[in-house]
Amino acid sequence: MPENVTQKLIRSHLVSGTMEPGEEIGLKIDQTLTQDATGTMVMLELEAMGLDRAKTEASAQYVDHNIIQADSKNPDDHLFLRSATRRFGMYYSQAGNGVSHPVHMQRIAVPGKTLLGSDSHTCANGCMGMLAMGAGGIDVAMAIAGEPVYIKMPKIWGIELTGTLPEWTSAKDVILEFLRRHDVKGGVGYILEYYGSGLDSLDAMDRHVIANMGAELGATTSVFPSDQEVKRFLATQRREEDWTELTADAGAGYDRYEQIDLSTIEPLIAKPSSPGNVVTVKEVEGEPIYQAYIGSSANPGFRDFAVAAEIVKDKKTANGISFDINPSSRQILTDLINEGHLSGLIAAGGRIHQAGCNGCIGMGQAPATGRNSLRTTPRNFPGRSGTKEDSVFLCSPETAAASALTGKITDPRSLGEKAPVVKEPARPTVDVDLLEVPLPPEEAAEVDLVKSGNITSIPPMDELPDELALPVLLKMGDNISTDEILAGGARVLPYRSNIIEISKFTFEIVDEHYYDRAKATVSKGGHAIIAGANYGQGSSREHAALAPRYLGLRAVLVKSFARIHWQNLINFGILPLTFQNDDDFSLISGDDLLIIKNIRASLQQGQAITAVIQSSGKSITLNHGLTERQKDIMLAGGLINWIKKRKGAD
Amino acid sequence: MPENVTQKLIRSHLVSGTMEPGEEIGLKIDQTLTQDATGTMVMLELEAMGLDRAKTEASAQYVDHNIIQADSKNPDDHLFLRSATRRFGMYYSQAGNGVSHPVHMQRIAVPGKTLLGSDSHTCANGCMGMLAMGAGGIDVAMAIAGEPVYIKMPKIWGIELTGTLPEWTSAKDVILEFLRRHDVKGGVGYILEYYGSGLDSLDAMDRHVIANMGAELGATTSVFPSDQEVKRFLATQRREEDWTELTADAGAGYDRYEQIDLSTIEPLIAKPSSPGNVVTVKEVEGEPIYQAYIGSSANPGFRDFAVAAEIVKDKKTANGISFDINPSSRQILTDLINEGHLSGLIAAGGRIHQAGCNGCIGMGQAPATGRNSLRTTPRNFPGRSGTKEDSVFLCSPETAAASALTGKITDPRSLGEKAPVVKEPARPTVDVDLLEVPLPPEEAAEVDLVKSGNITSIPPMDELPDELALPVLLKMGDNISTDEILAGGARVLPYRSNIIEISKFTFEIVDEHYYDRAKATVSKGGHAIIAGANYGQGSSREHAALAPRYLGLRAVLVKSFARIHWQNLINFGILPLTFQNDDDFSLISGDDLLIIKNIRASLQQGQAITAVIQSSGKSITLNHGLTERQKDIMLAGGLINWIKKRKGAD
Repeated sequence: MPENVTQKLIRSHLVSGTMEPGEEIGLKIDQTLTQDATGTMVMLELEAMGLDRAKTEASAQYVDHNIIQADSKNPDDHLFLRSATRRFGMYYSQAGNGVSHPVHMQRIAVPGKTLLGSDSHTCANGCMGMLAMGAGGIDVAMAIAGEPVYIKMPKIWGIELTGTLPEWTSAKDVILEFLRRHDVKGGVGYILEYYGSGLDSLDAMDRHVIANMGAELGATTSVFPSDQEVKRFLATQRREEDWTELTADAGAGYDRYEQIDLSTIEPLIAKPSSPGNVVTVKEVEGEPIYQAYIGSSANPGFRDFAVAAEIVKDKKTANGISFDINPSSRQILTDLINEGHLSGLIAAGGRIHQAGCNGCIGMGQAPATGRNSLRTTPRNFPGRSGTKEDSVFLCSPETAAASALTGKITDPRSLGEKAPVVKEPARPTVDVDLLEVPLPPEEAAEVDLVKSGNITSIPPMDELPDELALPVLLKMGDNISTDEILAGGARVLPYRSNIIEISKFTFEIVDEHYYDRAKATVSKGGHAIIAGANYGQGSSREHAALAPRYLGLRAVLVKSFARIHWQNLINFGILPLTFQNDDDFSLISGDDLLIIKNIRASLQQGQAITAVIQSSGKSITLNHGLTERQKDIMLAGGLINWIKKRKGAD
Repeated sequence: MPENVTQKLIRSHLVSGTMEPGEEIGLKIDQTLTQDATGTMVMLELEAMGLDRAKTEASAQYVDHNIIQADSKNPDDHLFLRSATRRFGMYYSQAGNGVSHPVHMQRIAVPGKTLLGSDSHTCANGCMGMLAMGAGGIDVAMAIAGEPVYIKMPKIWGIELTGTLPEWTSAKDVILEFLRRHDVKGGVGYILEYYGSGLDSLDAMDRHVIANMGAELGATTSVFPSDQEVKRFLATQRREEDWTELTADAGAGYDRYEQIDLSTIEPLIAKPSSPGNVVTVKEVEGEPIYQAYIGSSANPGFRDFAVAAEIVKDKKTANGISFDINPSSRQILTDLINEGHLSGLIAAGGRIHQAGCNGCIGMGQAPATGRNSLRTTPRNFPGRSGTKEDSVFLCSPETAAASALTGKITDPRSLGEKAPVVKEPARPTVDVDLLEVPLPPEEAAEVDLVKSGNITSIPPMDELPDELALPVLLKMGDNISTDEILAGGARVLPYRSNIIEISKFTFEIVDEHYYDRAKATVSKGGHAIIAGANYGQGSSREHAALAPRYLGLRAVLVKSFARIHWQNLINFGILPLTFQNDDDFSLISGDDLLIIKNIRASLQQGQAITAVIQSSGKSITLNHGLTERQKDIMLAGGLINWIKKRKGAD
């Protein structure tokens, strides 16, 4: 049967399940990508697993998020990450090299491979004919350890591109058009696969722009074929040998179809404060701006900067405008210098920043209160810029540069009939030493992890006992969020690599004594908590499971769980139990003792679990809904133990 | 009588006093410089004074310190500063243009003129044959309003430079040699004037390096002649018409002499954590480093970056090293690009940051805990880098670049016999539009100040009444510091432009209820406080006077004052009184009421002030030690009122 590119990628990596939409499938992962904000915990997880060496074909650690070093925490993290890559046989990209996604594309990406990354824009490398997906930190750690990733088989949405883009429009306008049509949840449950004659006029970096912002539609990922253009791109990177062709078979079908005629695209802009809030630039033309911002993984290419440089060439940006230039990679920055574009941007008033994510993830470059900021970045959620009352628009480099000249939102078509033609460098800069390559195994084995006082190993966790006697420490209502379990923010997040310290904030909003009370249960077999419906909604942070587990939490009894937190509880070996009868919630009080016997056997045999409330002697029935794989993880005491056991069995 | 350059500069600007060391002299100020960290308060003071237009020949506001925009506060400040420069007829240099000192030198500095700046490295422009001095914010505000600055006439220290520098040494090693000889207090009470044949081999930017770090010796300022080299420099800036010759007369003398034979200089380095802790690089060679850092006002020149680029050319910096490049000005950044140096630095592993002060003032680039950082910056006080347990060395660009290659402290002479020869650009980049020029008066008058919610006008203050009835709100011991009066740090400093908000932190360490108790006195004529000896030691921050004044503080009765805080109390109209008899301290308790009558007449007639303690009926005698000028300021209710009155009298 003829297959599309996505089906080929999945079939060639399928280790379990069938390719029926909605079915759980296991996929072999060839490459991983971690960035520094999520990477420290991944490395600590690898340490806790006792990993000797990454089992992937290539795993790369990038430092691009926390590169403003206001105190020692970020540089200490960088040293730790570097030592971990040395230890585990991974690539290391140091601060200043640029944003993970374009750098990975340039130096590591290989068509036909799978890539799992602990960053939601990992999907950007779908432009290379890869299956590239974002995931949580521990999923990436498992992939590095050689385990498959498990996802629900998505539907595949074929998007046929036809025609060519008009003057003054570019790839960013294409993905904004798709967001205009389908908004920020329109892609949920789908992989977006692009095909058609329109691809001929979109180079690999243009496709990166489109694949990157597939994340904004909620799509599992976006996929492009590996065609002659990908071959050309790899040749510019002196990696032509990494190319293989990967295109859809003639007659391949999709679960859903869509067409975009590129010739009908016009300059578009996402208004505050959602990437789906798309209108034509014309509709908002004339609004004064404070900032025009070029860069990020959503417009990382040489052409994205060069076209802005051509637009402002021999001109001055409007007085008082902050015209921020964020180079996306060291190689591209060098090309911009060599081709004369960087000096042009500077002469026009550009403010050149270090290569990295910067303001795209709120690290610097916050706009003034209530002032309009035009950015080529992928997201404009409220406050993401760092400014509470922000007003961020997303647009193409053409629109941002044209607006920088006038000081107000400007349709670039007003600058003339013909857009500047960007000449790619005849021989783009390639730095084959850009990333530190993995050490040979014998040298790697000698490396010690470099941990500052703020980075501590994940404490060991025991496997699930057969019998639990758990005092109930908290009884809570419905809709408890992970922010109530363990807050985020500037007070707590600096301890993200330090479970011992961060655990002190656990449930502090609910009960300021929880930490002390919970800690006291650790040596006595732990404790339980109970709550109502939708427990664990909100942020996906793993610490909301890891920290309470460290404090002795063994079982959570609720009416229902939010999906991601449920997964995180399993990953860290906390029993996620739901009442068979919701009324049983009222039978338990905040100071009861729950006795659960024969848990291991009940789990293994797929039976419901029975808990006895000591004070009343009453029994209640609890469901778990674990798959076979999840049962194994739970019995082992969580993913880290599970993989350690497997490693022992290898 | 033959005069040296310093004497000529002072004589030509002298408006009061005589040029006897130790005498108070008043000097006309031609130019001012403010940076953003200190500038917001200066602009609020100008607003409070009711200034219509800057009375200087040129006043320039630079944005170079707070250019990391983590939230809206910094960009809001930038908008406010720009609006104030538009309103008051000043130059505005936007974020990204670079560090004030080199930019001022390039675009504004004029030989023979005086420059007062609210930045301690203002002295750097002494390299241009100027009298350039750092001062507190309100002194600079007064200068902008056309008032003289008052200083104690310093002694003049003639430093004769002979010979030429050996290979691999540069200007930074010269000033490090002077710091090695005299340490960080060796220059107190002096102006350092450089002369001699050694000047011929030091270009204007080399002299900038030396003049800049005169601040580290505690010198009032440093002065170089305006010679043919200054003429050449101005010509490269297309400002040759701004040049006038200014050299010492034949036979001119100095209060103190010193000689430095440049040919004996070797690569030097200041060890942690004082600029005076200087040894030869050889003595510390081999110590591993984390960071090598090029830039700042202490090494701002094209050659400082170019020589580093030549040293690392076609090589790679050691793995894991952070090789931070901080361009000092937009013009120099452009030259570095055009001459191929920037791409060389990047290829070697350099991390390019936005032009500005950056890590030199702890804004990013903090080193990892306990790791060695080699910097071309002027200061390495403990923690200044942002890292509490830092280990910062100060050195030349040659030493920093050589060490970046090896990953350990390296004497650059080990790289070969001959140092690279730096070729200056044939025609350096000049951007005549770099700074926004002052608006014409009629346009300026129409400009409104742009204030975010975090910037508030300085509240009005009344003049000194003739009779005070002041409850004593606090009785404190010896050595009360300004940190106890009003703390600095990240919790308080964000409100530096908001007297109403920042006043809430006043004396909070001493008495958490002071704010409420003090505020209640405002409508009833205010209050007093009493303390022991050395009151107001520590940081010079003006807010420690302005905030309590806003809360009703009218008189401070102490055994003795720290000098700068004493001055600040006068500037903001708080009576600084000392006990004629220290034993009277014990007569007053923490809840007494003090009655002071006929204050205005007593002050005017130079009499001591008598206060009656209401509870006991006892009289005590208090001294003030105010000069005639200071009496006028005190009677007016502080400098702001004083200048308003003068303006009215104009």
